Amino acid sequence: MSYDPNNIFAKILRGEIPSHKVYENADAIVFMDVMPQSPGHALILPKAPSRNLLDADPAVLAKIIPLVQKVAVAAKSAFNADGVSIAQFNEAAGGQTVFHLHFHIIPRYEGQPLKTHARNMEDNAVLAANAEKLKAALAG
Amino acid sequence: MSYDPNNIFAKILRGEIPSHKVYENADAIVFMDVMPQSPGHALILPKAPSRNLLDADPAVLAKIIPLVQKVAVAAKSAFNADGVSIAQFNEAAGGQTVFHLHFHIIPRYEGQPLKTHARNMEDNAVLAANAEKLKAALAG
Repeated sequence: MSYDPNNIFAKILRGEIPSHKVYENADAIVFMDVMPQSPGHALILPKAPSRNLLDADPAVLAKIIPLVQKVAVAAKSAFNADGVSIAQFNEAAGGQTVFHLHFHIIPRYEGQPLKTHARNMEDNAVLAANAEKLKAALAG
Repeated sequence: MSYDPNNIFAKILRGEIPSHKVYENADAIVFMDVMPQSPGHALILPKAPSRNLLDADPAVLAKIIPLVQKVAVAAKSAFNADGVSIAQFNEAAGGQTVFHLHFHIIPRYEGQPLKTHARNMEDNAVLAANAEKLKAALAG
Protein backbone atom coordinates (compact mmCIF):
# COMPACT_ATOMS: atom_id res chain seq x y z
CA MET A 1 0.00 0.00 0.00
CA SER A 2 1.42 3.38 -0.94
CA TYR A 3 0.95 6.95 0.27
CA ASP A 4 -1.56 9.11 -1.61
CA PRO A 5 -0.48 12.79 -1.34
CA ASN A 6 -4.07 13.86 -2.04
CA ASN A 7 -5.51 12.43 1.16
CA ILE A 8 -7.47 15.00 3.19
CA PHE A 9 -4.84 15.28 5.96
CA ALA A 10 -2.09 15.99 3.41
CA LYS A 11 -4.30 18.81 2.13
CA ILE A 12 -4.68 20.17 5.67
CA LEU A 13 -0.89 19.95 6.13
CA ARG A 14 -0.40 21.94 2.92
CA GLY A 15 -2.96 24.52 4.06
CA GLU A 16 -5.23 23.73 1.11
CA ILE A 17 -8.19 23.09 3.39
CA PRO A 18 -8.80 24.54 6.85
CA SER A 19 -8.71 22.80 10.21
CA HIS A 20 -9.37 23.70 13.84
CA LYS A 21 -5.66 23.83 14.56
CA VAL A 22 -4.41 23.51 18.14
CA TYR A 23 -0.65 23.28 17.75
CA GLU A 24 2.06 23.03 15.12
CA ASN A 25 5.83 22.59 15.17
CA ALA A 26 8.41 21.55 12.58
CA ASP A 27 7.47 17.88 12.87
CA ALA A 28 3.79 17.69 13.68
CA ILE A 29 0.37 19.28 13.72
CA VAL A 30 -2.54 18.91 16.16
CA PHE A 31 -6.13 19.73 15.24
CA MET A 32 -9.65 18.83 16.35
CA ASP A 33 -11.35 15.78 14.82
CA VAL A 34 -14.40 17.14 12.96
CA MET A 35 -16.30 13.93 13.76
CA PRO A 36 -15.43 13.58 17.45
CA GLN A 37 -16.11 10.33 19.28
CA SER A 38 -16.34 12.41 22.45
CA PRO A 39 -16.04 16.13 23.28
CA GLY A 40 -12.44 17.33 22.80
CA HIS A 41 -11.35 14.53 20.42
CA ALA A 42 -8.09 15.73 18.76
CA LEU A 43 -5.72 14.32 16.16
CA ILE A 44 -1.92 14.41 16.04
CA LEU A 45 -0.15 13.95 12.72
CA PRO A 46 3.52 13.87 11.88
CA LYS A 47 4.25 16.08 8.90
CA ALA A 48 6.40 13.36 7.35
CA PRO A 49 4.30 11.37 4.89
CA SER A 50 3.45 7.79 5.77
CA ARG A 51 0.29 5.85 5.13
CA ASN A 52 0.06 4.72 8.75
CA LEU A 53 2.17 3.24 11.56
CA LEU A 54 3.19 0.24 9.48
CA ASP A 55 5.29 2.21 6.97
CA ALA A 56 6.39 5.10 9.23
CA ASP A 57 10.00 6.07 9.89
CA PRO A 58 10.77 4.92 13.48
CA ALA A 59 12.61 8.23 14.06
CA VAL A 60 9.40 10.10 13.22
CA LEU A 61 7.49 7.95 15.71
CA ALA A 62 10.05 8.57 18.47
CA LYS A 63 9.61 12.32 17.94
CA ILE A 64 5.82 12.31 17.87
CA ILE A 65 5.02 10.09 20.87
CA PRO A 66 6.09 12.67 23.50
CA LEU A 67 3.71 15.10 21.80
CA VAL A 68 0.94 12.50 21.95
CA GLN A 69 1.58 12.37 25.69
CA LYS A 70 1.55 16.18 26.05
CA VAL A 71 -1.73 16.50 24.17
CA ALA A 72 -3.29 13.65 26.21
CA VAL A 73 -2.34 15.37 29.48
CA ALA A 74 -3.56 18.75 28.17
CA ALA A 75 -6.83 17.26 26.87
CA LYS A 76 -7.61 15.61 30.23
CA SER A 77 -7.15 18.97 31.88
CA ALA A 78 -8.78 21.18 29.22
CA PHE A 79 -11.98 19.13 29.07
CA ASN A 80 -12.11 17.98 32.72
CA ALA A 81 -12.00 14.42 31.43
CA ASP A 82 -11.86 11.35 33.69
CA GLY A 83 -9.57 9.46 31.32
CA VAL A 84 -8.08 9.49 27.85
CA SER A 85 -8.10 6.82 25.15
CA ILE A 86 -5.38 6.83 22.50
CA ALA A 87 -6.21 5.08 19.23
CA GLN A 88 -4.19 4.63 16.09
CA PHE A 89 -5.76 2.74 13.20
CA ASN A 90 -3.99 0.97 10.34
CA GLU A 91 -5.73 0.08 7.07
CA ALA A 92 -9.50 0.05 6.56
CA ALA A 93 -9.98 -3.21 8.47
CA GLY A 94 -8.05 -1.59 11.33
CA GLY A 95 -10.49 1.34 11.43
CA GLN A 96 -8.43 3.78 9.34
CA THR A 97 -10.44 6.25 7.23
CA VAL A 98 -7.73 8.76 6.20
CA PHE A 99 -4.44 7.37 4.96
CA HIS A 100 -1.88 9.68 6.55
CA LEU A 101 -0.55 8.45 9.91
CA HIS A 102 -2.46 9.96 12.82
CA PHE A 103 -3.07 9.37 16.51
CA HIS A 104 -6.49 9.95 18.09
CA ILE A 105 -6.55 11.60 21.52
CA ILE A 106 -10.00 10.95 22.91
CA PRO A 107 -10.99 12.45 26.26
CA ARG A 108 -13.25 10.07 28.16
CA TYR A 109 -15.97 10.82 30.68
CA GLU A 110 -17.39 8.47 33.36
CA GLY A 111 -20.51 6.71 32.08
CA GLN A 112 -20.26 8.14 28.56
CA PRO A 113 -19.63 5.51 25.88
CA LEU A 114 -17.79 6.58 22.73
CA LYS A 115 -19.66 7.61 19.63
CA THR A 116 -18.94 5.69 16.44
CA HIS A 117 -15.68 6.64 14.70
CA ALA A 118 -15.93 9.05 11.73
CA ARG A 119 -19.72 9.24 11.72
CA ASN A 120 -21.24 12.60 12.76
CA MET A 121 -19.90 16.08 11.97
CA GLU A 122 -19.62 18.44 14.97
CA ASP A 123 -20.63 22.13 14.82
CA ASN A 124 -17.82 24.46 13.77
CA ALA A 125 -18.38 26.71 16.78
CA VAL A 126 -17.96 23.79 19.18
CA LEU A 127 -14.79 22.65 17.42
CA ALA A 128 -13.36 26.18 17.47
CA ALA A 129 -14.08 26.56 21.20
CA ASN A 130 -12.53 23.16 21.96
CA ALA A 131 -9.44 24.01 19.92
CA GLU A 132 -9.00 27.16 22.05
CA LYS A 133 -9.40 25.21 25.30
CA LEU A 134 -6.86 22.61 24.25
CA LYS A 135 -4.46 25.28 22.96
CA ALA A 136 -4.61 27.04 26.34
CA ALA A 137 -4.00 23.80 28.27
CA LEU A 138 -1.04 22.88 26.04
CA ALA A 139 0.50 26.32 26.54
CA GLY A 140 -0.16 26.35 30.29
CA MET B 1 -2.99 8.80 40.85
CA SER B 2 0.06 6.76 41.80
CA TYR B 3 1.66 3.55 40.61
CA ASP B 4 0.74 0.35 42.46
CA PRO B 5 3.67 -2.12 42.23
CA ASN B 6 1.27 -5.00 42.89
CA ASN B 7 -0.69 -4.60 39.65
CA ILE B 8 -0.88 -7.81 37.60
CA PHE B 9 1.52 -6.58 34.87
CA ALA B 10 4.15 -5.65 37.47
CA LYS B 11 3.85 -9.24 38.73
CA ILE B 12 4.33 -10.57 35.19
CA LEU B 13 7.38 -8.28 34.78
CA ARG B 14 8.86 -9.69 38.01
CA GLY B 15 8.15 -13.26 36.86
CA GLU B 16 5.78 -13.85 39.75
CA ILE B 17 3.00 -14.95 37.44
CA PRO B 18 3.33 -16.49 33.99
CA SER B 19 2.51 -14.97 30.61
CA HIS B 20 2.50 -16.09 27.00
CA LYS B 21 5.67 -14.13 26.31
CA VAL B 22 6.58 -13.15 22.75
CA TYR B 23 9.59 -10.87 23.20
CA GLU B 24 11.66 -9.19 25.87
CA ASN B 25 14.56 -6.74 25.87
CA ALA B 26 16.11 -4.46 28.49
CA ASP B 27 13.30 -1.92 28.16
CA ALA B 28 10.14 -3.79 27.30
CA ILE B 29 8.16 -7.01 27.23
CA VAL B 30 5.57 -8.29 24.74
CA PHE B 31 3.01 -10.97 25.61
CA MET B 32 -0.39 -12.15 24.44
CA ASP B 33 -3.51 -10.56 25.94
CA VAL B 34 -5.34 -13.38 27.75
CA MET B 35 -8.68 -11.75 26.91
CA PRO B 36 -8.10 -10.95 23.23
CA GLN B 37 -10.42 -8.61 21.38
CA SER B 38 -9.42 -10.45 18.20
CA PRO B 39 -7.11 -13.41 17.41
CA GLY B 40 -3.47 -12.41 17.94
CA HIS B 41 -4.12 -9.49 20.33
CA ALA B 42 -0.77 -8.70 22.04
CA LEU B 43 0.39 -6.22 24.67
CA ILE B 44 3.61 -4.20 24.85
CA LEU B 45 4.78 -2.85 28.20
CA PRO B 46 7.79 -0.75 29.08
CA LYS B 47 9.56 -2.22 32.09
CA ALA B 48 9.85 1.24 33.65
CA PRO B 49 6.97 1.73 36.06
CA SER B 50 4.29 4.25 35.17
CA ARG B 51 0.56 4.11 35.75
CA ASN B 52 -0.20 4.94 32.11
CA LEU B 53 0.79 7.36 29.33
CA LEU B 54 -0.04 10.42 31.41
CA ASP B 55 2.76 9.92 33.96
CA ALA B 56 5.29 8.13 31.74
CA ASP B 57 8.86 9.31 31.13
CA PRO B 58 8.91 10.70 27.54
CA ALA B 59 12.28 8.97 26.99
CA VAL B 60 10.63 5.63 27.81
CA LEU B 61 7.88 6.39 25.27
CA ALA B 62 10.40 7.29 22.56
CA LYS B 63 12.09 3.92 23.09
CA ILE B 64 8.92 1.84 23.11
CA ILE B 65 7.08 3.26 20.09
CA PRO B 66 9.43 1.72 17.49
CA LEU B 67 8.77 -1.65 19.17
CA VAL B 68 5.02 -1.00 18.97
CA GLN B 69 5.55 -0.53 15.24
CA LYS B 70 7.62 -3.72 14.89
CA VAL B 71 5.03 -5.79 16.73
CA ALA B 72 2.20 -4.28 14.66
CA VAL B 73 3.98 -5.17 11.41
CA ALA B 74 4.81 -8.66 12.72
CA ALA B 75 1.24 -9.24 13.94
CA LYS B 76 -0.27 -8.28 10.58
CA SER B 77 2.00 -10.83 8.94
CA ALA B 78 1.81 -13.58 11.58
CA PHE B 79 -1.98 -13.64 11.68
CA ASN B 80 -2.67 -12.72 8.03
CA ALA B 81 -4.57 -9.71 9.30
CA ASP B 82 -6.10 -7.05 7.04
CA GLY B 83 -5.27 -4.22 9.42
CA VAL B 84 -4.07 -3.44 12.93
CA SER B 85 -5.59 -1.24 15.62
CA ILE B 86 -3.36 0.24 18.30
CA ALA B 87 -5.07 1.22 21.56
CA GLN B 88 -3.68 2.71 24.72
CA PHE B 89 -6.08 3.40 27.60
CA ASN B 90 -5.62 5.85 30.46
CA GLU B 91 -7.62 5.61 33.69
CA ALA B 92 -10.78 3.55 34.16
CA ALA B 93 -12.94 6.02 32.21
CA GLY B 94 -10.39 5.75 29.40
CA GLY B 95 -10.81 1.96 29.27
CA GLN B 96 -7.79 1.05 31.39
CA THR B 97 -8.11 -2.13 33.49
CA VAL B 98 -4.49 -2.73 34.57
CA PHE B 99 -2.55 0.25 35.84
CA HIS B 100 0.88 -0.25 34.31
CA LEU B 101 1.37 1.52 30.96
CA HIS B 102 0.66 -0.80 28.03
CA PHE B 103 -0.12 -0.63 24.33
CA HIS B 104 -2.63 -2.99 22.72
CA ILE B 105 -1.71 -4.39 19.29
CA ILE B 106 -4.93 -5.75 17.85
CA PRO B 107 -4.88 -7.53 14.48
CA ARG B 108 -8.05 -6.79 12.53
CA TYR B 109 -9.88 -8.89 9.98
CA GLU B 110 -12.31 -7.71 7.27
CA GLY B 111 -15.90 -7.96 8.51
CA GLN B 112 -14.96 -9.04 12.03
CA PRO B 113 -15.93 -6.51 14.70
CA LEU B 114 -13.84 -6.40 17.88
CA LYS B 115 -14.88 -8.31 20.97
CA THR B 116 -15.38 -6.30 24.16
CA HIS B 117 -12.17 -5.30 25.94
CA ALA B 118 -11.09 -7.47 28.92
CA ARG B 119 -14.15 -9.72 28.88
CA ASN B 120 -13.54 -13.36 27.83
CA MET B 121 -10.52 -15.54 28.66
CA GLU B 122 -8.94 -17.32 25.68
CA ASP B 123 -7.74 -20.97 25.82
CA ASN B 124 -4.14 -21.37 26.94
CA ALA B 125 -3.31 -23.53 23.92
CA VAL B 126 -4.54 -20.86 21.51
CA LEU B 127 -2.55 -18.16 23.31
CA ALA B 128 0.58 -20.32 23.31
CA ALA B 129 0.25 -21.02 19.57
CA ASN B 130 -0.32 -17.33 18.80
CA ALA B 131 2.70 -16.34 20.90
CA GLU B 132 4.83 -18.70 18.80
CA LYS B 133 3.46 -17.29 15.52
CA LEU B 134 4.14 -13.72 16.60
CA LYS B 135 7.59 -14.64 17.93
CA ALA B 136 8.50 -16.17 14.57
CA ALA B 137 7.23 -13.12 12.63
CA LEU B 138 9.18 -10.75 14.90
CA ALA B 139 12.36 -12.75 14.44
CA GLY B 140 11.89 -13.08 10.66
